[in-house]
This record gives sequence, C-alpha cells and structure tokens, in this order.
Amino acid sequence: MNILLLLKLIGSILLVEGAAMLPALVISLLYGGSDAMAFVWTILILCAVGLPLRLLCKPEQNNLRAKEGFLAVALSWVLLSIFGALPFVFSGMIPNFIDALFEAVSGFTTTGASILTQIEGNPHGVMFWRSFTHWIGGMGVLVLTLALLPQMGGRTSHLVRAESPGPTLSKIAPKMGDTAKILYLVYGVLTLLNWLALLLAGMNPYDAAIHALGTAGTGGFSNYAASVGHFNSVWIEAITTFFMVVFGVNFVLYFKLVTGSWREGLRNEELRWYLGIYVGITLLLTLVILPTSDGGTFLNSLRYASFQAASLMSTTGYATADFNLWPAAAKMLLLLVMFTGSCAGSTAGGMKICRIGMLTKQGIREVRRTFQPRKVQVVRFEGKGVEESVLSQVAVFAFMYILLILLGAMLISLDGVHADFETNITAAITCVSNVGPGFGAVGPMGSFAGYSAYSKLILSFLMLAGRLEIFPLLALFHPAIWRR
Amino acid sequence: MNILLLLKLIGSILLVEGAAMLPALVISLLYGGSDAMAFVWTILILCAVGLPLRLLCKPEQNNLRAKEGFLAVALSWVLLSIFGALPFVFSGMIPNFIDALFEAVSGFTTTGASILTQIEGNPHGVMFWRSFTHWIGGMGVLVLTLALLPQMGGRTSHLVRAESPGPTLSKIAPKMGDTAKILYLVYGVLTLLNWLALLLAGMNPYDAAIHALGTAGTGGFSNYAASVGHFNSVWIEAITTFFMVVFGVNFVLYFKLVTGSWREGLRNEELRWYLGIYVGITLLLTLVILPTSDGGTFLNSLRYASFQAASLMSTTGYATADFNLWPAAAKMLLLLVMFTGSCAGSTAGGMKICRIGMLTKQGIREVRRTFQPRKVQVVRFEGKGVEESVLSQVAVFAFMYILLILLGAMLISLDGVHADFETNITAAITCVSNVGPGFGAVGPMGSFAGYSAYSKLILSFLMLAGRLEIFPLLALFHPAIWRR
Repeated sequence: MNILLLLKLIGSILLVEGAAMLPALVISLLYGGSDAMAFVWTILILCAVGLPLRLLCKPEQNNLRAKEGFLAVALSWVLLSIFGALPFVFSGMIPNFIDALFEAVSGFTTTGASILTQIEGNPHGVMFWRSFTHWIGGMGVLVLTLALLPQMGGRTSHLVRAESPGPTLSKIAPKMGDTAKILYLVYGVLTLLNWLALLLAGMNPYDAAIHALGTAGTGGFSNYAASVGHFNSVWIEAITTFFMVVFGVNFVLYFKLVTGSWREGLRNEELRWYLGIYVGITLLLTLVILPTSDGGTFLNSLRYASFQAASLMSTTGYATADFNLWPAAAKMLLLLVMFTGSCAGSTAGGMKICRIGMLTKQGIREVRRTFQPRKVQVVRFEGKGVEESVLSQVAVFAFMYILLILLGAMLISLDGVHADFETNITAAITCVSNVGPGFGAVGPMGSFAGYSAYSKLILSFLMLAGRLEIFPLLALFHPAIWRR
Repeated sequence: MNILLLLKLIGSILLVEGAAMLPALVISLLYGGSDAMAFVWTILILCAVGLPLRLLCKPEQNNLRAKEGFLAVALSWVLLSIFGALPFVFSGMIPNFIDALFEAVSGFTTTGASILTQIEGNPHGVMFWRSFTHWIGGMGVLVLTLALLPQMGGRTSHLVRAESPGPTLSKIAPKMGDTAKILYLVYGVLTLLNWLALLLAGMNPYDAAIHALGTAGTGGFSNYAASVGHFNSVWIEAITTFFMVVFGVNFVLYFKLVTGSWREGLRNEELRWYLGIYVGITLLLTLVILPTSDGGTFLNSLRYASFQAASLMSTTGYATADFNLWPAAAKMLLLLVMFTGSCAGSTAGGMKICRIGMLTKQGIREVRRTFQPRKVQVVRFEGKGVEESVLSQVAVFAFMYILLILLGAMLISLDGVHADFETNITAAITCVSNVGPGFGAVGPMGSFAGYSAYSKLILSFLMLAGRLEIFPLLALFHPAIWRR
C-alpha cells in the first residue's frame, strides 16, 4: 500500500475543495457578506490539513494501483462531505453537524434531499455553496483534481473509473488528465448555456445560477420551497426539462458531437434506450395524470409529466407539482425511472440505462437458454459483444443495489420516526439513486428533517454508496484492502 | 417440436388432476355432498379432454427436449389452474370465473392469497380442494405425474428441472420417475406427521387436514378468517411454526437423513444460511414488537415473531397476529424474508436461500475485484466452485424477479382501486414470492377481492411466474420457442 501517495492525493483534493469555496465566498461578499466568515474559516482549515499532506508526503513512486485508487476515492468523498458541511455549521444555517453532513453528502452526491424546513431567507453565499456541491459532485471531485493538477502523473485511470458512473470507462484522450479537462470543459459550457437560457426566461442571475448548477449536477437543490414550481413559468420549466435530459446523457457523446463524429454519437444504443424510455414514461404519465388537478388538458398534463419524468429519470429531483398526490400508477411510473436513472458517464444517478439494457438482454438470453441450453448466445451492446465478466458484474451490481435499498429501509425503520412503509422505502430508494424526493413524508413538498441523527447517517451512507456505485464504498469494509 | 408428445403429456396431467379431485369428492360426500356435483362435473370434463389426448396422441419418439419440457410445464400450469377453478364456480362458492381462477392459481402456486371475503361456512369439499391444490402445487404436478405414470419414459429431467425451485437440480435416483416417487413419499410422510400433531393438539380431523395441507405446500389457505390465530393455542402455533420451517428445507436432505448420510445433510450450506437467517430475523422481530400489543413479555413477543417469521420466510402466509399493524421496522424485516423465501427443492417460494447466498458471495467477490482486478476468485457454495454460467443465471434471475415486481405493481396501480403505494407494491411482492398476504389492504386480515378482474389476471400471472421461477413462463413469449 502506497500510503504516502494516498495521503498526498487526499491533501490535493482538500485543497481543491478549498479553492471550490472561493466562488461562494465571492457571492457571499456581493450580498453583504453575512456568511463570509464561514467560508474563510473553512478554507483556512482545509489549507491547514491539505497543504502539509500535499507538500510533506513524498511517495517513492507515483503509480496508483487499483487498491489505492479506490481507497482514495472512497475516503475523499467521506472527507469532502465532512469539510463541505462546515460552512453550513459556521454560518449558523444548519447548527447541528449531523444535519449539515447530511446536507453536504446530499449535495456532493447530487441527491438533493434536504433537511432544511426553511428554504427561503437563508444567506446567499451558503445557499450558493449548497448548490455548487452538486456541480462538483456531478462530474466528480477527483476528475476535477486531475483536470486542475495533471502533474499527479502516473496511472490515474483507477481514480476516474471509481468515480465515473457506469460499468465501463470510455476514454476520450490517451491521458486521463486530458480526458478530465475535456469533460469539465463540456460540462462548463453546457452549464453556462443553461444559465443563459434561464436568464433569458426571466430569472435573476443568482436564481439562474442556483438552478443551472442544480440541473447540471442533476442534484435538485433549489432556493425556493416550491422548487422550480415557484416560478410558474412554462419557459423556465421547458428549459429545465430540456437541460435535465441533456445532463443525463453520456458526456463522451457531446465530445463526439463537437469533434465531428456526431453520426457515431446518434447511433449510441444507450442514448436510444434512454430517450425511448423517457418518451414512453412521459406519455404514459401524461395519460395517467390527465384526470387530476395537474392535468385537465393534454398539454397541461404533458407539461407536468415531461418535467417530472425528466426530473426523476435524470435523478435531479426538481418539482413543479406535488407528485406525491398523483395517482398510484403515476407514482409507480416515477418509481421505475428513479431506479433506472440515466446514462453512464453523465452526472445522473440511478442504476444507469446501459446496465438496464444489458440486464434486459441478459434476461432474454436466460429465457432462451431454458429451452435451448446448448445454443451459444452473446449479449451485444453498442454493436459489440459484451464480456461475460462485465455482464456478471452488472447483474451483481443490480442485486447489491436492491439489497442496499431493502437493508437501508429496514435500518431507518428502526428509529420509528416515520411509521409508514412508503416513506421509509422511498427514502432509501431516492437516496441510493441520488434523486432527492421520495413519496410520503419525504415527498417533493416534505423533507428529511424528521429522521433521527442515526437515520441521517444511514441515509448519508446510502447516498455515497449510490454515487460511487456501491463497490468502492463497500471495499472500505473488506479486510483485504487494509492488508499490505 | 414434438407436438404429439406435448399433447399426450398434457392429457396425462389433466387426468392426474381429475384423480386429484377424488379426495375432495369423498370429503364432500362425507359432509352431506352439497358440493359433490361440482367435482363430478369437473372430473368428467377433465376426462373428456384428457383421455383423448392421452390415448390418441402417439408420438414417434418419447424423447422430451428442453423446449417441449418447458413448454409442457408452462402450459400445464395454466391449464391446471383453469380446470382447477371449475369446482369453485360449479359449487357457487366463487361464481365469477376470474375470481375462481385467481383462487386456483393462488392455490396451485402455494401463494394463499384469497379473494374470499367470507371464509367460514363454505362447503367442506370445495374448501378441501382449495387447500389440496397447495399440496399438489407445492411439490409440482408434473413431478406427481412422473411419480404416478413413470411409463412416460424417455428423458424427463427437463420437466422436473422446470418445476423444481432452485438454480440447480439435485438428483436422488438415476431415473426421474424414481426421484419423483421418493420426493412424494417424503412429502406424504411429513404431511401425515403434521396432521397427527395437529390432531394431538386438539384440532378436529378436517381442520387438521386443511392446515396440514396448507403448511406442507407452504400455501397458507385456512378455513378460518383469523387463520391459525383462530385457535389461539400455543401448541398449534408451535407445531405449525415447526412444520413451516421443516417444509422450507430441501427435501433431498430428508432423503439423506433417512438413508443414513445425515452428517452430509447437516453440513448443507443452504440449510445453515436458512436457519441462521430465520433465527436472526426472529430475534430482531421479537425485540421490535416487544412494545406492541402483540408483545409485552419476551416470550409472548417470541411466540408471535417466531410464527410470523416462519410463515413469511417459508412463504406460507398463515397469521396469528395482524402484522400489518406492527411497527415499520417489523414490516421491513418481514418484507426481507418475503424476498428470500426458503431453500431450493422445498415447497416454498421466494428467491431461494441458495440464490441469496450465491449472490452475496458474488457481491463480496465484485467488491474485492474493484481493488484486486487481476486476482482470480471462484465463488464456492456447498463446498465446491460454482460455474460462472450458474452464477450469472442466478444474478439475472434476481434482476428479473425485481423487474417483474415493479412492472406488476405499476400495472395493477393502473386500475386505480387501491390508491396506496404500500398495498400495490406488496401485493406484487407477495404474489411473485408466493407468500399470500402483503401489507395495507392486502394484509393478513384483508383480501384481494377489491382488485379489478384485470389486476387479478396480472397478479395470477405474477404468481405463476414466481412459482415456475420466471424463465419457463416468459419462454412462452419468446418467438424462438414456437419455431419448428
């Protein structure tokens, strides 16, 4: 185990987190600076811990093996959340540390589940930081570190692999540092476009920034209790719907689009599954909510259905309607897309569409194998045969995903705060899938404030496990990773 | 496709079903015979369809390939349920055919979900038939056919494989007909012991038969609305708890026990997982319900917890308490064992313990693979390495299982009868796992009567899919099975 390299890496990440707080500090100062000191103190603490680690740890070799890569990712995410929670505590917005930690984990993992019961009237800087964590967490903080500090050198593909969602990693450039830069460039440009579009639709620059960051990271924190529904504007909803779908697409496809191989991009099988499921669910949802107060006419139904399907499928979690009050069938449709999530290599959570596609094809293969046991059948995805080891990993991932949800729901039920089955099970689902709202007491107009500190820690673990796609976080508990 | 062999086989099965109605006819006559004609008519219809198929179809060869085997199993179960529903309709107990079909499917699949709102006061013969379907369905009707008509000849392992629960098939005897006979002998003896024990505990012979059949098949139909709770007897509950656990064990182990290799039987890994999970869940449940009205003292809690854990884990579904009113954590614990079910090769439903064991071990392997990607790791179960093809089949099975539940819950939500999430999702779970009761409106004191005919057909499909472990039933929808 290359402990020194691990510590140096963690030091770098903490410094990057400190740097990431600067925009929030500037915003704070622009709006009177009532919460500026919260950032100053946190940045000082991050430097006090990060600088010595970065400067004093001199590893003999820069080669990061899989073991250290996954450890680094898992530990960094835990540390990031702990330090990221400090501005909430120091500013007095969330005095309780466990609550602040929950909010920070929810931010970085792009979940958007909140313990705030009072959304409006909070200081501008801290609220900006809350949304900015979505943006950093969406693409990945280690990816950001690689983009900013490419001199990390050595083999760093394990870091990106552990942090990038999806069963396989697509490389854009031969060097990981270049890949990271390209990904963040695409991400930044798209976020800027989203911000400009919201400005044009009449939002003020601050609100537009909050909602563009929340959409880009597919997080879903808003600075209004009524979420995007607060604006009651068809334009803002249409723009947000469009960008929620956009940020659920594999970013590699945008790179291909720009570099001219757009035909290849459009042939992407996962993209076709993704758009197909989105359109199908939206149409079904439109019909199901037609008789409700959010329906009435087909176009009105379509307005709410297309927004909510995009919001839950991209695992953003914004709301324009209290879908907790929708008919049972509408809630089941939304539950389905909360499981699937969006594409691998996007900022979205969930199981990822390509996994769902591969699993469905594996299912069809197993059905056929029952009556044609000797026929050799290869599962093809994206035009080529998928290795059996990847297929089995995908299937086991699905099992672990469900197991985590069931065990999580059981553990949070133990605290007895919420007696209803619906609240507890959807709280676990929405946290593992990094969506944000669930049904019942944790519905779009509810919050996670009611849960005990014990449950908030369990749910924080579920959010981290979902964001890192389970295995890297569970690896921390495997004895073999700690052996030399 | 050997159509003639398929038809001959189906003919035999229908004749066996006719023969299986004779005990119910005798019971009916013993109790006045008000419902005797319902059986006479059904038996005549079964003979009218079954005899020509059996006698006139003369296949050129008796070799049953996998294709015909699985088709035969899937089609037989559908036909069995349709004809098995007739006594309910003819006797007037369930005049609506869809309701009767639901009850018959629920019986044969050993689910025990009922649409009856009036349990007491129904004719004795039909109520006996209702419970007897559990007994036949538990071990499998094709297995019974092989035991009774071994002259079917040829390779029949596909039939037993399609009907026996679990990922792999353990052979007891070289010939399938002998295996089938031994299994039914063990089954019969254990059922008789259960009946005698209930007699000794003070039940009348009829009630004892109903409850022994329901326990042996892990079905759960009772002739009292309060289920086993009606008797309010610690002895009856203890006996039923014991036998529910017993019938959740792989029957091959009992054969080994009798033939002297009991040491090997006790070393069985699945058995140890099974008992371990059962004891663990029972203890947790005991603690969770201690403060409720079903608790009070540790022993009283243990009484209800051990019964209910055994009932839901063995997927029987008997109740001695309205566990729908238990705390959220108790319901989540029960939900967990509704998923796991019991051992492969038992009469119980659910995903089966050996699959859960293999999946857990696969999960640990994938966790380790993240940080040691090059290490070759074999998953061992029952002391030997499991083939990768079996592992991948098990993992894909788990995904299909969950997908079926989610899609099923979505489809039954569409009819809008039950607006609550809890009722719809647990209705789907309890049907796929062949348990019987769920939570909410389909809880132990509720019924499935409220659902529309459309939903009852969906739920019937789910019960059959669960009993046949998904793939054989889905094979009916694969175009390749219908090609010559």
